[in-house]
Amino acid sequence: MMKAYVKTHKQKGFTLMDVEIPKKLGSHEVLIKVLSVSLCGTDVHIYNYDAWAEKRIKPPLIIGHEFSGEVVKVGSEVSRVKVGDIVASETHIVCGKCDFCREGKGHICSDTKIIGVDVDGAFAEYIKMPEDNLFVDTSGVDPSLLSVLEPLGNAVHTALHFDVVLKDVAVLGCGPIGLMAIDVLRCSGAAKIIAIETNETRRKLAKEMGAHVVINPLCEDVVARVLEETNNNGVDVVAEFAGNAKALELALDYTKKGGSISILGIFKDKVEFDINKVVFKGLNLYGVTGRKMYKNWHQIDKLLKTKKLRLDKVVTHKLNFNEMDKAFQIMDEKNCGKVVIKVSK
Amino acid sequence: MMKAYVKTHKQKGFTLMDVEIPKKLGSHEVLIKVLSVSLCGTDVHIYNYDAWAEKRIKPPLIIGHEFSGEVVKVGSEVSRVKVGDIVASETHIVCGKCDFCREGKGHICSDTKIIGVDVDGAFAEYIKMPEDNLFVDTSGVDPSLLSVLEPLGNAVHTALHFDVVLKDVAVLGCGPIGLMAIDVLRCSGAAKIIAIETNETRRKLAKEMGAHVVINPLCEDVVARVLEETNNNGVDVVAEFAGNAKALELALDYTKKGGSISILGIFKDKVEFDINKVVFKGLNLYGVTGRKMYKNWHQIDKLLKTKKLRLDKVVTHKLNFNEMDKAFQIMDEKNCGKVVIKVSK
Amino acid sequence: MMKAYVKTHKQKGFTLMDVEIPKKLGSHEVLIKVLSVSLCGTDVHIYNYDAWAEKRIKPPLIIGHEFSGEVVKVGSEVSRVKVGDIVASETHIVCGKCDFCREGKGHICSDTKIIGVDVDGAFAEYIKMPEDNLFVDTSGVDPSLLSVLEPLGNAVHTALHFDVVLKDVAVLGCGPIGLMAIDVLRCSGAAKIIAIETNETRRKLAKEMGAHVVINPLCEDVVARVLEETNNNGVDVVAEFAGNAKALELALDYTKKGGSISILGIFKDKVEFDINKVVFKGLNLYGVTGRKMYKNWHQIDKLLKTKKLRLDKVVTHKLNFNEMDKAFQIMDEKNCGKVVIKVSK
Amino acid sequence: MMKAYVKTHKQKGFTLMDVEIPKKLGSHEVLIKVLSVSLCGTDVHIYNYDAWAEKRIKPPLIIGHEFSGEVVKVGSEVSRVKVGDIVASETHIVCGKCDFCREGKGHICSDTKIIGVDVDGAFAEYIKMPEDNLFVDTSGVDPSLLSVLEPLGNAVHTALHFDVVLKDVAVLGCGPIGLMAIDVLRCSGAAKIIAIETNETRRKLAKEMGAHVVINPLCEDVVARVLEETNNNGVDVVAEFAGNAKALELALDYTKKGGSISILGIFKDKVEFDINKVVFKGLNLYGVTGRKMYKNWHQIDKLLKTKKLRLDKVVTHKLNFNEMDKAFQIMDEKNCGKVVIKVSK
Repeated sequence: MMKAYVKTHKQKGFTLMDVEIPKKLGSHEVLIKVLSVSLCGTDVHIYNYDAWAEKRIKPPLIIGHEFSGEVVKVGSEVSRVKVGDIVASETHIVCGKCDFCREGKGHICSDTKIIGVDVDGAFAEYIKMPEDNLFVDTSGVDPSLLSVLEPLGNAVHTALHFDVVLKDVAVLGCGPIGLMAIDVLRCSGAAKIIAIETNETRRKLAKEMGAHVVINPLCEDVVARVLEETNNNGVDVVAEFAGNAKALELALDYTKKGGSISILGIFKDKVEFDINKVVFKGLNLYGVTGRKMYKNWHQIDKLLKTKKLRLDKVVTHKLNFNEMDKAFQIMDEKNCGKVVIKVSK
Repeated sequence: MMKAYVKTHKQKGFTLMDVEIPKKLGSHEVLIKVLSVSLCGTDVHIYNYDAWAEKRIKPPLIIGHEFSGEVVKVGSEVSRVKVGDIVASETHIVCGKCDFCREGKGHICSDTKIIGVDVDGAFAEYIKMPEDNLFVDTSGVDPSLLSVLEPLGNAVHTALHFDVVLKDVAVLGCGPIGLMAIDVLRCSGAAKIIAIETNETRRKLAKEMGAHVVINPLCEDVVARVLEETNNNGVDVVAEFAGNAKALELALDYTKKGGSISILGIFKDKVEFDINKVVFKGLNLYGVTGRKMYKNWHQIDKLLKTKKLRLDKVVTHKLNFNEMDKAFQIMDEKNCGKVVIKVSK
Repeated sequence: MMKAYVKTHKQKGFTLMDVEIPKKLGSHEVLIKVLSVSLCGTDVHIYNYDAWAEKRIKPPLIIGHEFSGEVVKVGSEVSRVKVGDIVASETHIVCGKCDFCREGKGHICSDTKIIGVDVDGAFAEYIKMPEDNLFVDTSGVDPSLLSVLEPLGNAVHTALHFDVVLKDVAVLGCGPIGLMAIDVLRCSGAAKIIAIETNETRRKLAKEMGAHVVINPLCEDVVARVLEETNNNGVDVVAEFAGNAKALELALDYTKKGGSISILGIFKDKVEFDINKVVFKGLNLYGVTGRKMYKNWHQIDKLLKTKKLRLDKVVTHKLNFNEMDKAFQIMDEKNCGKVVIKVSK
Repeated sequence: MMKAYVKTHKQKGFTLMDVEIPKKLGSHEVLIKVLSVSLCGTDVHIYNYDAWAEKRIKPPLIIGHEFSGEVVKVGSEVSRVKVGDIVASETHIVCGKCDFCREGKGHICSDTKIIGVDVDGAFAEYIKMPEDNLFVDTSGVDPSLLSVLEPLGNAVHTALHFDVVLKDVAVLGCGPIGLMAIDVLRCSGAAKIIAIETNETRRKLAKEMGAHVVINPLCEDVVARVLEETNNNGVDVVAEFAGNAKALELALDYTKKGGSISILGIFKDKVEFDINKVVFKGLNLYGVTGRKMYKNWHQIDKLLKTKKLRLDKVVTHKLNFNEMDKAFQIMDEKNCGKVVIKVSK
């Protein structure tokens, strides 16, 4: 038996309880002892059991999807990992058979299952995963930091989809993924990184991650400031993480003609959008879902090996496994980067 | 002196009147005897003097921008064209000095002037143009058809911005440019071309231009039909020419995951837009303005030389120079492809 | 038991003999009744047991890799195909685990096994394949033609790697794959297709497949002729299938500045190569191996469904299973397109 | 009158002599007081009057093409620069009218004239240039360093043609341009930079510019070492500056499958080349000529403004205008980076 956080009922909160350790491994499955997990906005939705969660989540379900761990058992035909490997994990379990998967576009697979959402997740002492999903770390980074590689993958996908070498880039929204995007951009040849964020703690973190300019849109005219910082041209690329309609509308104004906007943020409602600005300025928009499988993971591998990332800075809180409620409270207050919970040692 | 249609007052209509033939040619300018002109939606705005026109147009102004002609005089340093050349013309006079122009992105030049909008236009017996703007036809196409090369350039820009080889493509809106986009797609290796249009005449023309499927969105569930025609995948690419918010919203539903939408249409108001669909489906959007200078013109050159285009079909009406009002009436009724007006012979 | 052509000894020729039908299917393997096979240059090397074959081929081995067939049995976890499906097959069995495979670049997999070369092949009444390799035809093409889809995939890879829409393309060498490349280019928006081939039969076939210009380099100055046909610019793209050093050298001269050459041909020896021409002309070269997995197969699917391909023309000979020696003789004489051998009905 | 180095006769050496200051400016021409010049390999060829020079150079000719200067007079229609501007210059005077120029590919213009080669050059107190060619520095870098921007443009073109973000890159040959390529790669997100160079001084400089690994191919097995440094994969990208056939051949072996090689080096003779390696490994080759106009110059602008470049390190020697012979001697001995000659202050 093992400890796990389970969504047991159709209501707010999780239950920490004893459940069975996954026993039966398929030929290509792997059992992992979870070392650390981290919290994502999606977990907050499930915790609060909002409208989206009500539609998507079928209790009982072990929640959580960001984790690092150690391989403790492998299925009969597993060859990519071995017992003892320190791993992080792609959290989308894809079909491997649709046209998308077969062209290296698993992030838009026709039949994706997400751990902690569609199937049992990672806020537990053990988890079972397909070997294909595992990322074996060989860089020697502190394993307790590796649960953040999954959202780091989102940051890489969003920040590097468009060419950013010697380009000016705005990072719109500096929650944990936005902060990691700044980190990635700093390591990837961006010329000037402009961070836009309302929360003071996060603006401070943005600076520490490598933003050259940090703007508080509550106190400044964002468009005017971005234009001022870019010789009146606007930024070449916007990496959007805020999911805020008004902020996106402004982005159309401070993006350079011919520039590009990649959008990871999820929007509450439909957006009132002046699409003519997209047309007249010749803009490019790209919607980001998941991580390019497995190109983005190979980029993560390279990032870890260059030793330039500041993962330790983006992880602002490390809690114990029994402090889950406190973790969600910290997330709610937003005065944080990434919140990591240590599960096993 | 020459005849020209002039916007003389801040009110509806044009005046056919005698004005001076442009006399003074700059060293790189060319005088052209206009052979034919054609009408664009922009001309309708100016004719009607709507809100946009009121803001942009400063009478008196010779209107019109789509034309073909014969070179009759060249400036002292002109070398790209010579007297007697049959020409069409790029209608954006760009600065040639900004970063965009200098990287081959003149379509988003920082300081564009459009003939018939910002400076005197082509609905006249003669027009003066910079030599850089001229396209010399060597294919031998009927010169009176060549005024449509300018909107054909929009069609090329929109239809070929994304890779369409062996792809399924929806053409959303089959006005003259949409019809030409079908023509271009047929010549460019698209697998299946699906035309969406409410007007019956234009649906019939769409079929004649080479659309494999023609949908009337007033009578059919567009999304269901497109999915049916694409093995339930949706189209790889949408070329948008309608400027209709509702139609664009539906396009998000019948575009394949990872697919692309290029948008030329201008929208009356802000669009209510479910941007989450862009995000979750991993879509690409691109705003189309003008013609890539001069890549799109080189593509036009190739299209003309392959002799596969059906320009004669897209030009449904040929009128005389004194029938301008009739031409606008035909445009208004929409039961037409391109309306061409012969100016000189 | 089944009939199969086996390389039994380290010497010229094959032996038609009885061998066991593959019995044991892995969980993701499929048993296929072979309908037709076709011959490739590689088979000729193995037949003749030349230096390359001596190094690579370990008898006894069932040879052959191009085939079509009908699924007769499936492994326990097979889901992509079912009994009764008509299939062609990717002939590279890739590892699925290396970085290349995991990014959709299986054609350069680190651990490829080729049927009929590294493992038992297709010149037999039955063959066992991994389900991942199978292409299920739903276009209704004559199944006996489908063995040529594998080399068609090479043609697609070579012809479409670079953008050919409205471009002038030279096809260098019109053996079966070159001929299919012409077919593909005709369906993919190429402007002018120029075929270069010494054999008269193949030049005639090139014309039938859709080449606009056919050049015999033994009788004409290839460079002069290509320049003449391209307004003195040279072709935008060369698709190379000849593996002839002298011919490649000439291609550098008739390729347009900034143009591109994709090379599938295998060269006997090192090539004397004026690389300065690549440098001064700003050329792009790309080496083609196998088929992009599975992008090229998706393109084949689309090509079949558009019904524009002329597979029946490229297959110039259909023989019976006991006429293998005759087939190799026809290949040797080169007065042929593709030679197909019917195995079962 | 002004001092200038002139190739007066068809023999070795230059003559420092008095010549007329260019007086007549065309409407788009600019007169520049030269601040500094630098030496390129091409100048060595002209100095020595080798076979190439004999064919190309028509004395008398002012030689030299790399320079920085101050605008002292402008033609009647000049608008991009003004008197007092500090400038560097594109040295290829292109036609502006061919298809290449008009698509932003001026580096392969059909009718290029190079200063110091085809028309009078920069080793003089004044030079006349078209305004289009000028790069106005606004970064405040020491003007005497700006003559090296032209070869820096070659470095940018070669190093950044292929995507290098988070990629392992080999720089083959660490003369001045190779050294600057290392500088560029360091600023552009390359993961690991591996420099290959026989000269000890230059290997030391390579390290100072930011190479992570420096290899002396005379003492080490280059292929083995590169593979060792890249986890046995080989490098993703090679930037070739050596023009050495043997070195290029080895590069085919230490380039990763699917990898890319951009080639700037000029080769003395034809190269014996195992093109099958290109084919079987699926490699991409690209020939580099000049600088992408003007994309590469915009990248230079960004590089200067990020203040990360180490131009002061790559310029190892600063001499006076009368020390030209000494400069060529230093170049010959190769124990140098870039050699700059101050002309005016």
